[in-house]
Amino acid sequence: MSEKRPVVIDLRFARESVVSALRSAFKDRPVIDMGDPANADRDLSDAEFAVVWKPDPALFQRASGLKVIFSGGAGVDHILSAYELPDLPIVRFVDRSLTDRMSEWVVWQCLHHLRNGIAYAGQQRDRIWHEISEQPEARDVTVGVMGLGVLGADAVRKLKIMGFDVIGWSRRSKVIDGIATFDAAGLDTFLGRTDILVGLLPLTDDTRGIYDRALFSKLRRTGPLGAPVFLNAGRGGSQKESELIECLTDGTLKAASLDVFEKEPLVGESPLWSMPNVVVTPHAAAASDVRALLRHVEAQIARLEAGEPLEFVVDRTSGY
Amino acid sequence: MSEKRPVVIDLRFARESVVSALRSAFKDRPVIDMGDPANADRDLSDAEFAVVWKPDPALFQRASGLKVIFSGGAGVDHILSAYELPDLPIVRFVDRSLTDRMSEWVVWQCLHHLRNGIAYAGQQRDRIWHEISEQPEARDVTVGVMGLGVLGADAVRKLKIMGFDVIGWSRRSKVIDGIATFDAAGLDTFLGRTDILVGLLPLTDDTRGIYDRALFSKLRRTGPLGAPVFLNAGRGGSQKESELIECLTDGTLKAASLDVFEKEPLVGESPLWSMPNVVVTPHAAAASDVRALLRHVEAQIARLEAGEPLEFVVDRTSGY
Repeated sequence: MSEKRPVVIDLRFARESVVSALRSAFKDRPVIDMGDPANADRDLSDAEFAVVWKPDPALFQRASGLKVIFSGGAGVDHILSAYELPDLPIVRFVDRSLTDRMSEWVVWQCLHHLRNGIAYAGQQRDRIWHEISEQPEARDVTVGVMGLGVLGADAVRKLKIMGFDVIGWSRRSKVIDGIATFDAAGLDTFLGRTDILVGLLPLTDDTRGIYDRALFSKLRRTGPLGAPVFLNAGRGGSQKESELIECLTDGTLKAASLDVFEKEPLVGESPLWSMPNVVVTPHAAAASDVRALLRHVEAQIARLEAGEPLEFVVDRTSGY
Repeated sequence: MSEKRPVVIDLRFARESVVSALRSAFKDRPVIDMGDPANADRDLSDAEFAVVWKPDPALFQRASGLKVIFSGGAGVDHILSAYELPDLPIVRFVDRSLTDRMSEWVVWQCLHHLRNGIAYAGQQRDRIWHEISEQPEARDVTVGVMGLGVLGADAVRKLKIMGFDVIGWSRRSKVIDGIATFDAAGLDTFLGRTDILVGLLPLTDDTRGIYDRALFSKLRRTGPLGAPVFLNAGRGGSQKESELIECLTDGTLKAASLDVFEKEPLVGESPLWSMPNVVVTPHAAAASDVRALLRHVEAQIARLEAGEPLEFVVDRTSGY
């Protein structure tokens, strides 16, 4: 029926979510699902599009006729850093669902630290009824968001509505209505005003290991939380984990909520699991909904076929 | 200097917060602070206004010349239910700070249950890296807010911006832009649509014990959280605690976040402290900021003296 060339799918997500999403996607186009062992040796040279998350390293050689690569997540370091990639447009995954989920996690954890969630959980365990008298409200606390792409901009907006004082940082200067923003040259000023640092940076050569002792030491120490708090829901490769652990131990940081780690899954021996001032979630802040991902891919392919430019194309030099 | 009649203060809050707030309040009027033992036997018949939180039962007889009673909190059950009150206007405490704090707590706890906070804390304790695959997003979950006064309306607005599907209930019909609301006659319909029930009701004859097994059994059981969740930040007297505990044990409720209890402080033997599906906070959701309270009282007195009507006057028949 279809004369369209196939789309090849190599998504290392939970298998059932991929199978289920594929049932209702790409109605007018053949699909080659690399999760199906029957396709292991299939000729891929006719594939026009690839949708990938941590794909087989040989995929891009085998699929030599690709026109576009779609990343299965908001980040593209999983392919940029790991493969010799053909010179093709790479499209990031941008989606309302992904964005909303990330903002849920960020607002949840900012409120958790604002409202003494860790201390109250400890008091509950010990059956202690004690109202913590130093309870700042959101407007007294400055949340500094690093990374002002689609995710960062949405988090900023929602944090502001919850009452937080919000400022933002991105390497290249960005304007966001109603908040002060800083660029590379303004990093120290940004950090010096920040009580809760929210990391939403992509992983690039510039951001690898950026969250280190030197950076944490520049956060505001006179804010109403007593000491600064660090949240990371971007990429674990951006944090120097040994220095992060030291800073959480020696009081440079009051607390942290971490969804990402240098090495995932986080190893069982990591002290982060049991540190009383750390919240660990297993890279679950904003899971890609595979159905939403495939809708996004279909929409971009439709744009292309209508002669419109692709959206969310990655700048290979900056890495995001 | 002043010829104004005194304001009497009987606020059973943390003493230092009252003393500190009084330093910068009522510059043009004498203050009788009942927390100061020197005032124990003072003649109070000249006092014109009273600002009270759980005051001395004899206060209203001794202060026989009062014109207005100001409640130190959003609720007024602490005086309405406990005293033979003179027939005077009672003014509730309404304040941006109180409202913002309450919405912080409500949004925090709704996100905590949406994002599997209890399960992830357990996995962290056991060093288990496992992404919970059934992760609905906020728009899939209906939060039903009971009580649509100033606090309820603000919580509704912020929950909606976080993406939740929100509906509201109040005894008397209320219209809130953009959400479906229900009144007394619509209670069962409201409950049948609700996944997370948020209690922000005042304590009155109508609401005493309203959160019981019969009510919890009517909540939606087919929602994306698996079973309904209950939050109470209104008044503990509205919950039948023994039935609440049963429902949390037998699966009628999946989980609860409780800031208020039938008896406060919550007794050490209460099973609620150690139930794995319960979050306990010690009536700390929205502490009255005493400075903000006194600003609000000053503003209302200024209105009265300018010939304007008082705001936030309690309807003695309905009890709020």
